[in-house]
Amino acid sequence: MKKPITIIKVGGKIVEERESLLALLDRFSAVEGNKVLIHGGGRSATKIAEKLGIESRMIDGRRVTDEATLQVVTMVYGGLVNKNIVAGLQARGTNALGLTGADCNIVHAHKRPVKDIDWGFVGDVDGADGKMLAALIEQGIVPVVAPLTHDGNGNMLNINADTMAAETAKALAPYFDVTLTYCFEFPGVMRNPDDASSVIPLITPDTYCALKEDGTVSGGMIPKLDNAFNALAGGVTKVIITRADAIDGKQGTHIVQ
Amino acid sequence: MKKPITIIKVGGKIVEERESLLALLDRFSAVEGNKVLIHGGGRSATKIAEKLGIESRMIDGRRVTDEATLQVVTMVYGGLVNKNIVAGLQARGTNALGLTGADCNIVHAHKRPVKDIDWGFVGDVDGADGKMLAALIEQGIVPVVAPLTHDGNGNMLNINADTMAAETAKALAPYFDVTLTYCFEFPGVMRNPDDASSVIPLITPDTYCALKEDGTVSGGMIPKLDNAFNALAGGVTKVIITRADAIDGKQGTHIVQ
Repeated sequence: MKKPITIIKVGGKIVEERESLLALLDRFSAVEGNKVLIHGGGRSATKIAEKLGIESRMIDGRRVTDEATLQVVTMVYGGLVNKNIVAGLQARGTNALGLTGADCNIVHAHKRPVKDIDWGFVGDVDGADGKMLAALIEQGIVPVVAPLTHDGNGNMLNINADTMAAETAKALAPYFDVTLTYCFEFPGVMRNPDDASSVIPLITPDTYCALKEDGTVSGGMIPKLDNAFNALAGGVTKVIITRADAIDGKQGTHIVQ
Repeated sequence: MKKPITIIKVGGKIVEERESLLALLDRFSAVEGNKVLIHGGGRSATKIAEKLGIESRMIDGRRVTDEATLQVVTMVYGGLVNKNIVAGLQARGTNALGLTGADCNIVHAHKRPVKDIDWGFVGDVDGADGKMLAALIEQGIVPVVAPLTHDGNGNMLNINADTMAAETAKALAPYFDVTLTYCFEFPGVMRNPDDASSVIPLITPDTYCALKEDGTVSGGMIPKLDNAFNALAGGVTKVIITRADAIDGKQGTHIVQ
């Protein structure tokens, strides 16, 4: 039987505000057993880019990454955000190791081909080296992964953090019994967005179809859930969608095959 | 018999200029066997601080690191410089892992106590965890170390890169036969700074005394050589002082006990 591992993805908003970051570090440190933290970058990159006189261009909430912007996200996600999380976890006795996908060549990607939009140095992931990551985790290391990797030609690439989490989870699935938790601003997938008690506790492929058909799940929740089912298809045991203050593995919406 | 390892320290100037960085990456990739690269940060942090409206304060060439400056060096050294080196080495088939001393809790340090000068978040190193680092290296990983660590209380600290290199070398000495190479702008310790052919090929404790007494070695070379003998006293086999274009282990000044 494979050992369990918990992979938690948190957005940039959580990790860039001191209070919510500290609360997350406390909660993540309390998660028992093997674990991985994947973090977003978010608005801190926009703020720093602005001060450096670099214009941030977003399309559908995603960052167009020209060369100057790549430098900013490499600094902010790979340096500032990642290392402050590492230092905070070390202070809590969690033996964190900050990584991008370039480190140990863990995540393989290529620059997104230009079609209608030139995304610049944005990467599409080809795969991840679960063996190397699993070996690090077996040594008691807790990887803290920034949403960046490289193209194999010496360039860093900006990666969507949700994708980074799903790919990391799939890569670890041959070695561990993986639970992938996506934190967002709501307590789970809700029947009524205004009613916190309307969280749907369990979604399976069958109930997902029904929820889409009757319109309960729509808009931005669809790519999130498609992403979750993609991870399950890749060998992940369970995906949880929950709030960052509810990462004990019991709350939120649990998605299984 | 312990396996050999080569630890190379390069200054910020080498890694922040594209041409000299690429040349270094080629040469470092060509170094055979186990190896570690320690890099400085240098002027790129000053430039970015300036653009962000943060004043850089240097005393005797060392950076006073207030909270805003700490953020800049964490971004620039730990993110921009470190990850670009990692991506560049990966492109050359060298399985680099970018680290600060906070990652895997490798380097233990404390904030320098305030005496005449308040250095801010500058760290004095207490020791390094050679066991963890050796385990990573045994897996075929090539650590690329930024001159940063943490204080154990959640804060990052700015560390002198020469010190980082010496402490890393000493920590690895129980596990490897360590050669520590410091790259600087001259081809070695020279009898006559204007004559490249006057490099002193070998310095031992005895000849070091004589060189100091007759004034051949003076000024800034004395702390450099004291640092080298400190590393040797800590179990390092050999220290080499050379230029970044001469890291084949044969050139420069070799310092042994």
